[in-house]
Amino acid sequence: MLFHVYIQINIPHDADQETIRNLSALEVKQAQELQHQGKWPHLWRVAGKWANVSVFDVDSIDELHAILSALPLFPFMALEITPLCKHPAAIR
Amino acid sequence: MLFHVYIQINIPHDADQETIRNLSALEVKQAQELQHQGKWPHLWRVAGKWANVSVFDVDSIDELHAILSALPLFPFMALEITPLCKHPAAIR
Amino acid sequence: MLFHVYIQINIPHDADQETIRNLSALEVKQAQELQHQGKWPHLWRVAGKWANVSVFDVDSIDELHAILSALPLFPFMALEITPLCKHPAAIR
Amino acid sequence: MLFHVYIQINIPHDADQETIRNLSALEVKQAQELQHQGKWPHLWRVAGKWANVSVFDVDSIDELHAILSALPLFPFMALEITPLCKHPAAIR
Amino acid sequence: MLFHVYIQINIPHDADQETIRNLSALEVKQAQELQHQGKWPHLWRVAGKWANVSVFDVDSIDELHAILSALPLFPFMALEITPLCKHPAAIR
Amino acid sequence: MLFHVYIQINIPHDADQETIRNLSALEVKQAQELQHQGKWPHLWRVAGKWANVSVFDVDSIDELHAILSALPLFPFMALEITPLCKHPAAIR
Amino acid sequence: MLFHVYIQINIPHDADQETIRNLSALEVKQAQELQHQGKWPHLWRVAGKWANVSVFDVDSIDELHAILSALPLFPFMALEITPLCKHPAAIR
Amino acid sequence: MLFHVYIQINIPHDADQETIRNLSALEVKQAQELQHQGKWPHLWRVAGKWANVSVFDVDSIDELHAILSALPLFPFMALEITPLCKHPAAIR
Amino acid sequence: MLFHVYIQINIPHDADQETIRNLSALEVKQAQELQHQGKWPHLWRVAGKWANVSVFDVDSIDELHAILSALPLFPFMALEITPLCKHPAAIR
Amino acid sequence: MLFHVYIQINIPHDADQETIRNLSALEVKQAQELQHQGKWPHLWRVAGKWANVSVFDVDSIDELHAILSALPLFPFMALEITPLCKHPAAIR
Repeated sequence: MLFHVYIQINIPHDADQETIRNLSALEVKQAQELQHQGKWPHLWRVAGKWANVSVFDVDSIDELHAILSALPLFPFMALEITPLCKHPAAIR
Repeated sequence: MLFHVYIQINIPHDADQETIRNLSALEVKQAQELQHQGKWPHLWRVAGKWANVSVFDVDSIDELHAILSALPLFPFMALEITPLCKHPAAIR
Repeated sequence: MLFHVYIQINIPHDADQETIRNLSALEVKQAQELQHQGKWPHLWRVAGKWANVSVFDVDSIDELHAILSALPLFPFMALEITPLCKHPAAIR
Repeated sequence: MLFHVYIQINIPHDADQETIRNLSALEVKQAQELQHQGKWPHLWRVAGKWANVSVFDVDSIDELHAILSALPLFPFMALEITPLCKHPAAIR
Repeated sequence: MLFHVYIQINIPHDADQETIRNLSALEVKQAQELQHQGKWPHLWRVAGKWANVSVFDVDSIDELHAILSALPLFPFMALEITPLCKHPAAIR
Repeated sequence: MLFHVYIQINIPHDADQETIRNLSALEVKQAQELQHQGKWPHLWRVAGKWANVSVFDVDSIDELHAILSALPLFPFMALEITPLCKHPAAIR
Repeated sequence: MLFHVYIQINIPHDADQETIRNLSALEVKQAQELQHQGKWPHLWRVAGKWANVSVFDVDSIDELHAILSALPLFPFMALEITPLCKHPAAIR
Repeated sequence: MLFHVYIQINIPHDADQETIRNLSALEVKQAQELQHQGKWPHLWRVAGKWANVSVFDVDSIDELHAILSALPLFPFMALEITPLCKHPAAIR
Repeated sequence: MLFHVYIQINIPHDADQETIRNLSALEVKQAQELQHQGKWPHLWRVAGKWANVSVFDVDSIDELHAILSALPLFPFMALEITPLCKHPAAIR
Repeated sequence: MLFHVYIQINIPHDADQETIRNLSALEVKQAQELQHQGKWPHLWRVAGKWANVSVFDVDSIDELHAILSALPLFPFMALEITPLCKHPAAIR
């Protein structure tokens, strides 16, 4: 079950820089594990922004929420979720 | 070079239904050819809408414009284009 | 799997009134069947609008799309879909 | 009398974390009491957000306001209220 | 129970002028009856617009919906409804 | 001369709570005086928000501005002003 | 008493061109009379749009509404009204 | 004097196709003359849209308005105008 | 050459009050000088807001930018600039 | 390959002024180098704003992202990116 998620990171200018660096490093690690597990099949950087376009492949909406809300930078994220389904013209 | 394109189809209620059906059939054919050529690697239906989320892989912005503006339903499309690049946490 | 759907009906003023009445009657029938099947557990009228707030209970996003796009008034609907999950404070 | 309420929680990043945890615990307790009393018949988590979709069943608008403004996290909430009525196609 | 309703009338330019004049005349009559019954205690014209600011006093949301959806110009109205309650600083 | 004013109060979370309580108490007193003088004939609480819908009756726009900008909570207000006139269907 | 009015003219593409030309000619005449009477002291064209920025000087909101709603192109206008008062730094 | 103009062309689906083709041909010719005269120094197609980003170099706002409102497709254009000046970091 | 400028002043609640008062006093002085020089021919307070509607008369866009960016409260201003030209129906 | 970028700088009022001045000086230097390299062919100040309209000429989207995200004021920028292509009516 696929969900398209647009993730924008908004760091307040007076947040502690080291905390953010640590959270970002954890975020990368967690994102890579989820990719290896096949839960996060697509992840692209949006040019010119601290934002990404992602597609998640999950078994339920609860699993989607569990994954997103456990991301280290979640408190700084603005998320837009779009449920996807197979397109009649898609060849795969 | 990847571009994320959100494509919403808006058919005016008084458009000729047969013309739209014919254009739609052509659209499917053209979308499949572009997928086979590797130009349109991702195509998903947005649930509950006559809309899709697509990723195009092109050599230039001119090629992107040529592909999009030649789509049979282009006159009825509202398009949002987002340039993508590699994400530092992506494993592929 | 629950999806919250806000459905707004927009009928163009020059649409054929009898066609709309027929589609509306079919819509009611279909909505009632889906309720009996447990697919459409909540359906409320939004006061002062030709709109409703609905919750659908489906097995997949594809099923959600199939249900919505088969509604007789679908071509006149503007839909907003929100995936729902269990709330930690919910008692049921 | 039913009101649909979309509740978004916005915690400023420099708010005291323990205060927020305490308010959240109180919020859960209060939400559960209101559910047991039948005042808050539906409560769903919105996937990927610190937000919920709720339906309140109250005797008056004043009661609705009293309930909402007494919630512990009320100062951090953005609320959207939509009055609901029976839908002609609803089977219950 | 008071509801604040902002009513904007949008007449398509190609609507039949006599139909609109007749509906408008009926609308005035119905608005006056509802005022005499105490159901529509406040009705002001918004300067420079075919719009009004209204306050309705009803026994239920269903009654509010019944009143609004029976207005002759309802198909041409864009409505915004805001539930009101007593203000702690109001002297009446 | 009537002006409809939608007043939303936005208190920053790190404002001094006692200062706000004092300003609020002054605000209530000033609102009541203006009601007794007939300058603020309608004042309703918007359900679920720290906001109100008001109607002011003033002799000039300058008087309206003087009244609003002298309110103790004015620095925290977002105001939307709509000039009103008599509605042709109003019975009073 | 001054009101700032932003007037945007939206002519549907299938409106009768001669009717619009006639209404426009009447509009010019009426605008000039109102300027000679001192009711419409400022009138500027917005560059690149069929729109103008105007200031009206009227005795009441009812007079403002009467003037605007009697303009020949009123049915095609989108209007934004802003009440003005004397600025403390203005030298006149 | 430079003005940045974003020009979006919106052709109603029931406009006469030959008229539009003729206006478009005239538009191209006029755009090229204005480029040769140095009045329209930059003109780019926005990818995926019937829209362009332009910079005009004119002697006055009146000249800008005269040029834009004389474009054959002007009645179908939505325009956004931004006045530009020299940037302190620009090397030319 | 006339530019319409809507100026909204947004003072953060934790800005130093005396600094703001001093900047405001300087702002008044500078605004009056610019009015005496004929550069700022119109300046009105927007009722109920710390905002004004202004018309500037300048020789170039660079002069407009120089004037605006030198205003003492410029760092707290949100500005909307609209180029104006002579209206065909204006009598002056 | 051309990208149109609208760059708005938003400096929080409590940011350290000297840090901002230093970053701004670095920004100017970097902007000038990129212009000399032909990567940033157009750079204009938007009148009345701390904002600019820019056109970048890059070999890939990754290069665009690398350039933008390395700008010293990047953390304070809101960016809007629009891919450009050759316009059929452009003479160059």
